[in-house]
Amino acid sequence: MTDRVHNFSAGPSTLPLPVLEEVRDELVDYQGSGMSLIEMSHRGKHYDEVHHDAMALARDVFALPDDFDVAFIQGGATLQFSMVPANLLRDGQRAAVTRTGSWSKKALADAAAYGDSYIAWDGEPLGYARTPAGEEIELRENTRYLHICSNETIEGVRFVEFPDVDVPVVADMSSDIATRELPWERFDIVYGGVQKNLGPAGMAVVFIRHSTLDDMRTDMGAYLRYGVHVDKDSLYNTPPVFSVWVTGKVLRWIRDTGGLKAMTAAAERKAGTLYDVIDGSDNFYRCPAEPNSRSLTNVVFRLPDEELEARFLAEAGERNFVGLKGHRSVGGCRASLYNALPQDGADALAAFMDDFRRRVR
Amino acid sequence: MTDRVHNFSAGPSTLPLPVLEEVRDELVDYQGSGMSLIEMSHRGKHYDEVHHDAMALARDVFALPDDFDVAFIQGGATLQFSMVPANLLRDGQRAAVTRTGSWSKKALADAAAYGDSYIAWDGEPLGYARTPAGEEIELRENTRYLHICSNETIEGVRFVEFPDVDVPVVADMSSDIATRELPWERFDIVYGGVQKNLGPAGMAVVFIRHSTLDDMRTDMGAYLRYGVHVDKDSLYNTPPVFSVWVTGKVLRWIRDTGGLKAMTAAAERKAGTLYDVIDGSDNFYRCPAEPNSRSLTNVVFRLPDEELEARFLAEAGERNFVGLKGHRSVGGCRASLYNALPQDGADALAAFMDDFRRRVR
Repeated sequence: MTDRVHNFSAGPSTLPLPVLEEVRDELVDYQGSGMSLIEMSHRGKHYDEVHHDAMALARDVFALPDDFDVAFIQGGATLQFSMVPANLLRDGQRAAVTRTGSWSKKALADAAAYGDSYIAWDGEPLGYARTPAGEEIELRENTRYLHICSNETIEGVRFVEFPDVDVPVVADMSSDIATRELPWERFDIVYGGVQKNLGPAGMAVVFIRHSTLDDMRTDMGAYLRYGVHVDKDSLYNTPPVFSVWVTGKVLRWIRDTGGLKAMTAAAERKAGTLYDVIDGSDNFYRCPAEPNSRSLTNVVFRLPDEELEARFLAEAGERNFVGLKGHRSVGGCRASLYNALPQDGADALAAFMDDFRRRVR
Repeated sequence: MTDRVHNFSAGPSTLPLPVLEEVRDELVDYQGSGMSLIEMSHRGKHYDEVHHDAMALARDVFALPDDFDVAFIQGGATLQFSMVPANLLRDGQRAAVTRTGSWSKKALADAAAYGDSYIAWDGEPLGYARTPAGEEIELRENTRYLHICSNETIEGVRFVEFPDVDVPVVADMSSDIATRELPWERFDIVYGGVQKNLGPAGMAVVFIRHSTLDDMRTDMGAYLRYGVHVDKDSLYNTPPVFSVWVTGKVLRWIRDTGGLKAMTAAAERKAGTLYDVIDGSDNFYRCPAEPNSRSLTNVVFRLPDEELEARFLAEAGERNFVGLKGHRSVGGCRASLYNALPQDGADALAAFMDDFRRRVR
């Protein structure tokens, strides 16, 4: 087998090696059944156990209060951009959105198709260099919820503190889900695509405050209604078996590695390793995010010019660092440091960044 | 390794063993890249090749005309029940549905959320024992499309001939997709969840007549718009990487096994093997579907009483026949014979059915 690369991809991204090896070993013949799990009825006992284990692990790892439900829904966070307003917004109600970067812009655009939505704080004039302080968020009358993107994958900024406002918060946590503990009392819905911190692409994990289900709209097809997924334990239709299976294994790995507290500590250490290099580089590396909003999972940085950036990326590629190119919309460099990326990876990248700077400056 | 069982599950269901083994062998380290394919950016060269290969293979296998697009969309056929009417039905237009069984009932219910939908032929009074002849389908004015379920997985009836009507046909082919060639000129949209004949659960393959995109509604979130998926080659957001990857391998297996003609011949032979046993059983086994509507992929049958059915299913289970219990809504027995089920499986089941009948009668 080839050596594992240092995988800094923004998502899909690195998974724990023991999980991959377990999936490989179980893939063709699941527990002596003479079938693969992906060949089995989703109503049968093997998959049923896998499915409900994954749900129970999600409850456990996230310390989910009893009055929240878990759902596994296909379509990633992108489908949630439609489902949230379609289910929550009644006539005369508004959706507030903090425009903090590329992903909240997409959420905002989709919400507009379902009702009145507005920008409650705008990071655009600031070049998306930070997230708002709580008192900067301006809510209007009849606001049903405030939608935030807790961590902007492309711009590398995050809410260090979650907003504590007078309306329920809905959070897209795709790029920092399972990296931090949550003040559940502030949220009505928390969701995230699994493909960064939790598993292979193919679904979102959605946490829904149960009492909100009673007041949701139902004038849409069954797949789009949260109530249908919750009532049927995410088995209304055929679930994305492989994603659920592997996400369950990653959740178990998170639990056995120390849970969300350990994930937070690891994220802080990995991100700190890189921000230290950036901040100690005498402005050779620059992070466009302001220090009090810097992401722990997506470290965005620039070099003095694009030529050096291209050289940096090329040399990094030769040294088995993968996925360091910034998003095509913003350029530059980005190191994504999700749960399964070992500290070793951050250390190796830090050493390379130091070495590169010394060589070219 | 345990011997493979005979897997007659209705979906998810059996996959070609060489495909499973290939996925296992490639799972941890994809082509010496030092990563799994499911850990890679969906914008990178490895996944890009996998993605576009799968699309090209779908075009090839289905002999798709140039004026059709292919899309891979999460949410299975169930999300299509919403997307079809949401995209196609304009004010004053109607959706016609042939009510031929459980799945067309679900499509009908979801269509009602988006506009005027009506039953153009009703199999309910006939106990869903057959599908309509073309001249029995009654279309009203301003009908935008006729929605059919080409094969009802639960009731075991299919359209042997596709309707040739004055409006475009939209076909849910989840349980017989890739088992038969299609008269594309009759269709605007053909879709199917992949988890029966094409791959692991997690997406639908959707074929869309390109000219229809110009006249679609756009008053909904991005993920729900066919135009978005088509414009972005099904890469608007993170695709369900594993499902696309394995579906591509199954499509290649279909192509290399002789394509849809070979799949049809194999389906006819497997189904014929079982229907011959049923018809030659002197009414011990009874098929509720009328002969001219019988499914080639879901052979539904009853025994003289429920006690015998329970004994049949128990003994079958001991002999490594899996998934023969009928859907919980109708009871009885069902053998699903999808593309990857070998003729051996049908032969073995036929022999067991004969033996069981002789022993208990």
